[in-house]
Amino acid sequence: MNVAVMGYGTVGSGVVEVLTKNHDSIVKRSTQSELEVKYILDLRDFPGDPNEDKMIKDFNIILNDDDVKVVVETMGGLHPAYEFVSSCLKAGKSVVTSNKELVAAKGCELLSFAAENNVNFLFEASVGGGIPIIRPISQCLAANEIDEIAGILNGTTNFILTMMIEKNMSFEDALKLAQDNGYAEKDPTADVEGHDACRKICILASLCFGKHVYPDSVYTEGITKITLDDVAYVNAYGGVIKLLGRAKRMENGKIFAVVTPAIVMQGSQLASVNDVFNAILVRGDATGDVVFYGKGAGKLPTASAVVADVIDCARNMGRKKPIGWGEAEENYVVDYKTAENPLYIRAAVEDYEKALSEITEKVGNVKVLVFEGCKKTEIAFVTECGKESELCEKLNSVNGIKIESLIRVTDY
Amino acid sequence: MNVAVMGYGTVGSGVVEVLTKNHDSIVKRSTQSELEVKYILDLRDFPGDPNEDKMIKDFNIILNDDDVKVVVETMGGLHPAYEFVSSCLKAGKSVVTSNKELVAAKGCELLSFAAENNVNFLFEASVGGGIPIIRPISQCLAANEIDEIAGILNGTTNFILTMMIEKNMSFEDALKLAQDNGYAEKDPTADVEGHDACRKICILASLCFGKHVYPDSVYTEGITKITLDDVAYVNAYGGVIKLLGRAKRMENGKIFAVVTPAIVMQGSQLASVNDVFNAILVRGDATGDVVFYGKGAGKLPTASAVVADVIDCARNMGRKKPIGWGEAEENYVVDYKTAENPLYIRAAVEDYEKALSEITEKVGNVKVLVFEGCKKTEIAFVTECGKESELCEKLNSVNGIKIESLIRVTDY
Repeated sequence: MNVAVMGYGTVGSGVVEVLTKNHDSIVKRSTQSELEVKYILDLRDFPGDPNEDKMIKDFNIILNDDDVKVVVETMGGLHPAYEFVSSCLKAGKSVVTSNKELVAAKGCELLSFAAENNVNFLFEASVGGGIPIIRPISQCLAANEIDEIAGILNGTTNFILTMMIEKNMSFEDALKLAQDNGYAEKDPTADVEGHDACRKICILASLCFGKHVYPDSVYTEGITKITLDDVAYVNAYGGVIKLLGRAKRMENGKIFAVVTPAIVMQGSQLASVNDVFNAILVRGDATGDVVFYGKGAGKLPTASAVVADVIDCARNMGRKKPIGWGEAEENYVVDYKTAENPLYIRAAVEDYEKALSEITEKVGNVKVLVFEGCKKTEIAFVTECGKESELCEKLNSVNGIKIESLIRVTDY
Repeated sequence: MNVAVMGYGTVGSGVVEVLTKNHDSIVKRSTQSELEVKYILDLRDFPGDPNEDKMIKDFNIILNDDDVKVVVETMGGLHPAYEFVSSCLKAGKSVVTSNKELVAAKGCELLSFAAENNVNFLFEASVGGGIPIIRPISQCLAANEIDEIAGILNGTTNFILTMMIEKNMSFEDALKLAQDNGYAEKDPTADVEGHDACRKICILASLCFGKHVYPDSVYTEGITKITLDDVAYVNAYGGVIKLLGRAKRMENGKIFAVVTPAIVMQGSQLASVNDVFNAILVRGDATGDVVFYGKGAGKLPTASAVVADVIDCARNMGRKKPIGWGEAEENYVVDYKTAENPLYIRAAVEDYEKALSEITEKVGNVKVLVFEGCKKTEIAFVTECGKESELCEKLNSVNGIKIESLIRVTDY
């Protein structure tokens, strides 16, 4: 069987490397007599590369070669990835991608192209890098109704938060360190503002709940406003701050889905996920909480997930795997402020005691947080559990405080 | 499609419950027009049970009914489970089991019966209860060579160790509490002596490394000798004691496999697995460490794993899934004392200072451990990394100490 790889960057070259290194066992597992990379599509030149003879610049060579049964898309970005992948699926080729932006924006449509042409469109590597998560959700948990899913889905922000929590490093210094280590890009916006995590929770929510969730329908908040004071107050509360993508089935058939910094309690599985690691918690009605942990990015982990999908395509030639979802109705994702949870609040105050007394009067019982060396010009507390819109209304009615930080407390 | 369930105990009745409760989505996912439990085999009577009309006592009714395509075995024990499962496979019926004893003892043979008859023999529920692990290993990690696997595979012992570590409860009291909570049986031998974990690591090692590992070839040590002093010393070292099943590929094509109490360092993913939870760490050459966490036992988690396998059988009618392994050569599992790791030692001493000086002389540098209130009549320390047989030889040459506890330090 012949494979084409589109995009010879970090992941694409890793795919070729894994296919070469573990060639014999991969052929065996694919139940094919052979499994060979025939073309590598990239506009750049790679002089001296061992795979130079396979390099092409014209997509149509892949499209028109009937020997190419599986196409790997590791180009990233929406265009021309979308056009290339659509054409391949329509030409009866299975496609494997690691491109979360593509799946989050066009997954529903591409899955329907795959179904129409009885080929597979697989994207295990698009979420959680090397962590098996798409396939366990769609297969192993087939006997469960999934109620909820939550994950640390972005390694860059988790590294930054870990440095802030464990080394007392400021956000700026931690970001700089992440960039120096190659964990963050020069323009870190997609990571630190939560867009990357948003694409991933969209893919997971689409898969878990059966209808496409588009990134622009998901309230997304990054970690740029988290301060070391927040870290210290939350530590005093017994928790840690993590950037979580979360999605939950609501009783009315709609879903709740957000990406925000969130508090998880120490001792929980998600709390001990540090550095660039990712973890995804799936809450099933029969199975309870199941957590999948591993490297969420990196050349070889991601490549190994892509190759596992290639093997799956090889084994399922002419046989569409039952992964898919439909389009959602309007307003499928509910207003995030309807969710119920306790809120952590840090606010500037003029008169601490007066503010506390008014908070207690208007918001109800709160747990006041302090740490050694905290300022008397700010107050930090956690409210009782309540609907966010109502809690915010009450908080806004308190005079003499200026809210500087609001973080949701989770029950993970 | 018709299903028969053999054994209407905790898991079996859970299987029927999940199949009933999530019936519609399960039928859809199974790509069958219907999926119905036709028979429940159990020698006991269940008067008033909603499924009373399906109860039978004669196995031959299942064997001879061609409408029964998938048989669930949740009886437990080797006999007659082995005879029944063999007969079903030979009669062209797929079998799903949660019976770890059966898979560990007869897996290789039963898988070959399945292959000969082009049916499936699946056993996701036999390890890790509701945690998807068998399928992710065989599919998602297909692109990896697995180098090593380690797991907290027994919920009962993990609960006992958690109570000892977190509540300072003695082994006896913790066992009693586990029994009172229904986590441990009246005769807890299979759990506390490590036999249950041994069966599970045998199944995992067989799957990961391709050759059947029999329980009697795996050195197995339980947790009955762990004392609260050990817990405190290991805490001072920065670790926690867990009962781990471990298996590792050796360079000579053989494997290392043991079940023993082992030290994992605080902050690692396995260290925060508490109470009755299980977790399994898979170390792949491309993916790095991946950890799967969840409830390792219990009616609904285990049942959901069984039902996921039933769905998989339904979707793969007439199509053998490529799970399987061969028989191993003799001495496939190496002597456990050839492994290299640091050792934690607690020993009774007559003269602390003299003993320490002789230990340093004969064993080399060690890290001495103390905790507030520890006795001067015993010494606890961790050696440098070395081959266990050689370390033990050196330790045995030290005069004036009586070794009371030896626990291996892992790098998880």
